[in-house]
Amino acid sequence: MRMRRKKNLDSRLENCGALLVSEPQQYKGKWRELFGSEGELHLEIGCGKGDFVLESAKRRPDVMFVAVERYKNVLLLAMEKVRDAGVKNVLFLDVDAAQLGDIFAQGEIDRIYLNFSDPWPPKKRHKRRLTHANYLTVYDSFLKKGGEIHQKTDNTGLFEFSLCSFSQFGYTLYDVTFDLHSTDFDNIMTEYERNFTSQGMKIYRLVAKKPE
Amino acid sequence: MRMRRKKNLDSRLENCGALLVSEPQQYKGKWRELFGSEGELHLEIGCGKGDFVLESAKRRPDVMFVAVERYKNVLLLAMEKVRDAGVKNVLFLDVDAAQLGDIFAQGEIDRIYLNFSDPWPPKKRHKRRLTHANYLTVYDSFLKKGGEIHQKTDNTGLFEFSLCSFSQFGYTLYDVTFDLHSTDFDNIMTEYERNFTSQGMKIYRLVAKKPE
Repeated sequence: MRMRRKKNLDSRLENCGALLVSEPQQYKGKWRELFGSEGELHLEIGCGKGDFVLESAKRRPDVMFVAVERYKNVLLLAMEKVRDAGVKNVLFLDVDAAQLGDIFAQGEIDRIYLNFSDPWPPKKRHKRRLTHANYLTVYDSFLKKGGEIHQKTDNTGLFEFSLCSFSQFGYTLYDVTFDLHSTDFDNIMTEYERNFTSQGMKIYRLVAKKPE
Repeated sequence: MRMRRKKNLDSRLENCGALLVSEPQQYKGKWRELFGSEGELHLEIGCGKGDFVLESAKRRPDVMFVAVERYKNVLLLAMEKVRDAGVKNVLFLDVDAAQLGDIFAQGEIDRIYLNFSDPWPPKKRHKRRLTHANYLTVYDSFLKKGGEIHQKTDNTGLFEFSLCSFSQFGYTLYDVTFDLHSTDFDNIMTEYERNFTSQGMKIYRLVAKKPE
């Protein structure tokens, strides 16, 4: 998601400093230590303005959340929301998804969320999709056996691609729906999703499970 | 597909007698012998009025086709079409899909087509869907390793279900599309598909591959 540069970006980022993990590589294999908890560790890749991770963290205080967003302007808004809500079980990273293999150790992550990732429509750009095999290889290096990737998108091309990509990677599909809001799933909306849904767009969702 | 009983059904069926295999269990493991060919053997389960299998057989004279349809009224129309076209590489069965395990031997079938199968919408009827695990177990008993199941449908609920069902059965998904007619796939339309497409409905398609 692209936005204009925020006013006083640097000073506002500093005010959220405790939430942003700098040099996250040093915590590889030690994230539970950092959080001071032995609970589950969930990772949202591309958290946007943070509505999803904030609400998820409120509902599951037993779970630790790491939210990744590479656009600092957007990351700032997510961090300010979490700071203002006083929620303690969320930390943020401003890295690219391709770097995550250097940040999390084998089996360290219990669940990954991919919400409304960039669809990169031209075929020559499909390698940039966050469900491309190149990225799945990165996630696989730290997702625990039996761990799940939960994906939502409004983009048909990305969803078709992702179904094949997960399947061909050896992951098993569950809960595939082409109209999430018509199901009884206890959904947490992202800000992007709320906007799209109000325009009548349907939301796709799947769960892809790593073999045990 | 349900239709009114055809006039002179029995005598018209007799006129296509050579195309309808009675007591097909006796050919288990011997279908290539019956056709007198060593080529691929493709099975369409639910062939309706036969447009798809007739055109497929014309385009691939090197492949043998067995078309299954349990409604005799409809089967008759399919058989008359094939007879009138003088096409020799198609035979018909009027059995239920659940019986097919008694009719084909392990590895005997190279490919299966499921075109616009009954969606059986109520959840308590999902066991009747031709992509339910109970049916996949039957097909698996005779589909060769690396063999493919090609599915088309206009029904969202059936397609969502099938994606999960194939994946959870251990088959790998390829060529998933939510709008077949917008792709460059060299499609052969069924009569049902032609009708639906002319009404602006989109057609789903997938290929599910059995592990090697």
